[in-house]
Amino acid sequence: MIYLDNSSTTLIKPDVVSKTLYEAIASQKYSNPSRGFYQEAINSSEAVYDVREIIAEFFGVEDPLNVAFTANITTSLNLVLNSIFKKGDHIITSVTEHNSVLRPLYQLEDRGVELSFIDIDENYNLKLEELENYLKDNTRAIVITAESNVSGVRTDLEYIYEFAIAHDLLVIIDGAQVAGTAKIKFNERKYPRLIFCITGHKALFGPTGTGAIIDMSGEKFKNVFTGGSGVNSFHRFNSVEMPDVFEYGTINFHSILALGAGVKFIDGIGIERVSEKIHSLRQRLFYGIREIPGIKLFSNERDSSIVSFNYREYPSSEICKKMYKINKIASRGGIHCAPLFHEKVGTKTRGIVRLSLSYFNNKDEINKTIDTIKLIAETS
Amino acid sequence: MIYLDNSSTTLIKPDVVSKTLYEAIASQKYSNPSRGFYQEAINSSEAVYDVREIIAEFFGVEDPLNVAFTANITTSLNLVLNSIFKKGDHIITSVTEHNSVLRPLYQLEDRGVELSFIDIDENYNLKLEELENYLKDNTRAIVITAESNVSGVRTDLEYIYEFAIAHDLLVIIDGAQVAGTAKIKFNERKYPRLIFCITGHKALFGPTGTGAIIDMSGEKFKNVFTGGSGVNSFHRFNSVEMPDVFEYGTINFHSILALGAGVKFIDGIGIERVSEKIHSLRQRLFYGIREIPGIKLFSNERDSSIVSFNYREYPSSEICKKMYKINKIASRGGIHCAPLFHEKVGTKTRGIVRLSLSYFNNKDEINKTIDTIKLIAETS
Repeated sequence: MIYLDNSSTTLIKPDVVSKTLYEAIASQKYSNPSRGFYQEAINSSEAVYDVREIIAEFFGVEDPLNVAFTANITTSLNLVLNSIFKKGDHIITSVTEHNSVLRPLYQLEDRGVELSFIDIDENYNLKLEELENYLKDNTRAIVITAESNVSGVRTDLEYIYEFAIAHDLLVIIDGAQVAGTAKIKFNERKYPRLIFCITGHKALFGPTGTGAIIDMSGEKFKNVFTGGSGVNSFHRFNSVEMPDVFEYGTINFHSILALGAGVKFIDGIGIERVSEKIHSLRQRLFYGIREIPGIKLFSNERDSSIVSFNYREYPSSEICKKMYKINKIASRGGIHCAPLFHEKVGTKTRGIVRLSLSYFNNKDEINKTIDTIKLIAETS
Repeated sequence: MIYLDNSSTTLIKPDVVSKTLYEAIASQKYSNPSRGFYQEAINSSEAVYDVREIIAEFFGVEDPLNVAFTANITTSLNLVLNSIFKKGDHIITSVTEHNSVLRPLYQLEDRGVELSFIDIDENYNLKLEELENYLKDNTRAIVITAESNVSGVRTDLEYIYEFAIAHDLLVIIDGAQVAGTAKIKFNERKYPRLIFCITGHKALFGPTGTGAIIDMSGEKFKNVFTGGSGVNSFHRFNSVEMPDVFEYGTINFHSILALGAGVKFIDGIGIERVSEKIHSLRQRLFYGIREIPGIKLFSNERDSSIVSFNYREYPSSEICKKMYKINKIASRGGIHCAPLFHEKVGTKTRGIVRLSLSYFNNKDEINKTIDTIKLIAETS
């Protein structure tokens, strides 16, 4: 099989990830961390803290306690958005957002939060110059993806930061597609009011059930979900400090240890090399299929881990099925939970074929994929 | 080590659980289930459905789609409580609840929901005869634990059901301590308006990061958290049908497969035998330490997986530490996230020593634990 559905989840992970996950249980060394005083409980507390450190360092964040673990990025986004915004606030977002951003925002809209959507141009780039037009007295934040999960087009975060600084806005980033595929180091260019949400099971090579909220905003959070924390049990609610405000109930320490192993694997190679490999394979794929007659690309030349396309009038699912049948190429058709993008580019019904890459892909796979798409084009 | 902190998490799990978890990643057979058409995505959809079936059957629930997976029972309870109740409702709960129940209820209270608390008697049994006194015109539900996570005293669920039927109330059960330690078969005694919340990582032997909402209520739920679901992407929100209403973002399929292996392991032995073994060890422990001079028990003779106690005026943590030092017995002192219970029995400051059992404990361990507590009593 040629696995090109990495934006959905990385099927192929470093061996160390599955081994760490196995050992998290089989070693019988890790018990429930919360407040236990015996060695196995302490092991878990320490190991979870180590992973906070690994992740903080990976993204260039100073304080590991600003990394709160969640069940997935959808949970991260629901928590953050519900923790901060209230009736009367205005948020600027974009038409490229995933439903993990859009739907929590629509919930806020139903409670009196106003939304504005930045559009994309014919090259699938966000029209960031329009930001200015959406600005209002009650604008509090920009909530935006760092990379469209359909087109793979990356957001010019520097532009966003500059704009947000100039207008004292909070920036909340959906980092699902960039965490592990692009170099993101927040200490290289400090931005004062930033919250970065990630998932563990995509390019960071963690198991499912892992995600995080990385807070660099100094924002005052309020409890959204709440429960036992193992500390201050007589308080009416969880602490509102990071990371406790977003961690309720038993933390997923088994999977968190394995996520740590995934991030360390990337660190061992260097995110620059990982990102460069993905980039070079992606450019090979992009230019390789661009020239095939009948192909319409929904991606552009810029750096990314995704190439999306359709072939003539065919439904995306049909092309996906053919690719899988001919050479066992796993891709993803349909809407990719990004409805506004598809409305915008007119693919609501047929969807788009998305090919998404990982460090574990190679040139041969990419060449074979290009040949397969050529074959489909010649024989359809 | 003698591990007696199973109410916190089962440190010792069947080998098949860690192996299944390993294979969930290492086999490269399970990709993101959501809407994928290639084999590895279908494998995950099917495998997750199989675990819904395993759990539904284990608890005697007809429709596997009434099992929604969550990240832990705290998430289950937050979702259910926030999905159903609104300003003006009245809920009856108890002083034995864990903060995973209490804190979400306090949040509701701050939004105008009224709460009443059933008390316990001097034997740590809930005073269920008081239920009648709390009934009001706006009483909508009883939210209650099936087993106190401090005393281990089980709730007379039959009494609760009868009362709830008589007054047309919804019953929401915190099943954290009974799922996997007691036989719970909902089809043996159908109750029409029931929601059962569980966690995976305790007696069901699953990994952390797993929990569920088992709905037998026919209640109309509303979205609490929302996000991508892979289906109906153009709808403004997730479906409000079970299980989709409570499953947002990528489901934790790696860990869910391992949870299925845990439940199947119990099924292989038979929950009756598992429960009988725990019961017999627990009774040995209960009667073994009851007679030691200076011991005060916070448990009673009835079936349970927990024995809790204090020794003279010592802080619980000190006894826990001694037990660990002398014979590496892992127990849990402190408040166990159950503040009202401790307020009630006067152990707010010193806490209580909790010993909690699993199928993987044995007689020798229990005898050694009794001897250790005797030794502490003789030498303190």
